[in-house]
Amino acid sequence: MRELEERIRRDGIVEDGDVLKVDSFLNHQMDVELFAAMGREWARLFAGEGVNKILTIEASGIGIACIAAQQFGVPVVFAKKSRTKNIAGDVYHVEIPSFTHGGVSDVIVSKRFLGPGDRLLLIDDFLANGAALEGLLALAEQAGASVAGAGVAVEKAFQPGGARIRARGVRVESLARIQSMGPGHIEFC
Amino acid sequence: MRELEERIRRDGIVEDGDVLKVDSFLNHQMDVELFAAMGREWARLFAGEGVNKILTIEASGIGIACIAAQQFGVPVVFAKKSRTKNIAGDVYHVEIPSFTHGGVSDVIVSKRFLGPGDRLLLIDDFLANGAALEGLLALAEQAGASVAGAGVAVEKAFQPGGARIRARGVRVESLARIQSMGPGHIEFC
Repeated sequence: MRELEERIRRDGIVEDGDVLKVDSFLNHQMDVELFAAMGREWARLFAGEGVNKILTIEASGIGIACIAAQQFGVPVVFAKKSRTKNIAGDVYHVEIPSFTHGGVSDVIVSKRFLGPGDRLLLIDDFLANGAALEGLLALAEQAGASVAGAGVAVEKAFQPGGARIRARGVRVESLARIQSMGPGHIEFC
Repeated sequence: MRELEERIRRDGIVEDGDVLKVDSFLNHQMDVELFAAMGREWARLFAGEGVNKILTIEASGIGIACIAAQQFGVPVVFAKKSRTKNIAGDVYHVEIPSFTHGGVSDVIVSKRFLGPGDRLLLIDDFLANGAALEGLLALAEQAGASVAGAGVAVEKAFQPGGARIRARGVRVESLARIQSMGPGHIEFC
């Protein structure tokens, strides 16, 4: 999606260790007009797929997912990072490794909000190693929900997550796919 | 706001210990059409206030804030709960006590996204003891930003946060104010 690529070129900052900072418009300060354009693009790509719910994960997926959901006319469910070690029986639960702070997050969704009747679009801001998206897929599987696909804002295509998830047969629509990057340069696929 | 009050009456669940669960439409599963109606109401209430940015806090404020921001035509900044103990010098920082999981959260906003030129609307899903909103006010104060007011979805008016924050001269617009509640009954102000 040209609009997102241009914004990344203009305002994205590449830092050491394959870090792309897009926090001025995507995941700390958030440009909701850009999000609306992204939502329209996913609605076009997934038209006719019967999506009845969007599933995302806190925190930075939530804003994008909510604005995209307006285009689909469906509710959003966000998977929560639990801070309690007692995971009750009324939730679906996965462990997702974190590359930002190390360790593992316990991520849960109430069983009241996902089930076999659901046809999900998964939404997240980034796809790199794929851990978050694989966590959402595992939650969908536990619920018996079907997955129309995943809408990702920025995919680091030089990291293995996207290829691994597509190899499972999941449709992944990334609006900007980065082939390579370094200080001062960003190359899209 | 009648639409929100009716939804709380219909789908809210009062549990022991003054807990109101509204997770089927507000803060786990999210009804984005309801959020749009809430955003229109805040836009009406704060019209002419010169709001140029919305400030909220992860996680459950983000969706409401993003959809409200569309009505104002402004970006959103969300305050992040930091998991690193090293708070760098390029962020505003407050400690916010948590009544959900006990303890204290370190909450930060990058200095790049708030400053003296900003006129903020604070948005959050709940106002009870006021800790989160007071944290956002402290962040605004550190930034030298002015605050047009706070938009809250659900205020537990029988808890002290709302009165304390209004006593500081901050305009608080809560769309549903609960006067009292118990198993099977919810009374609005």
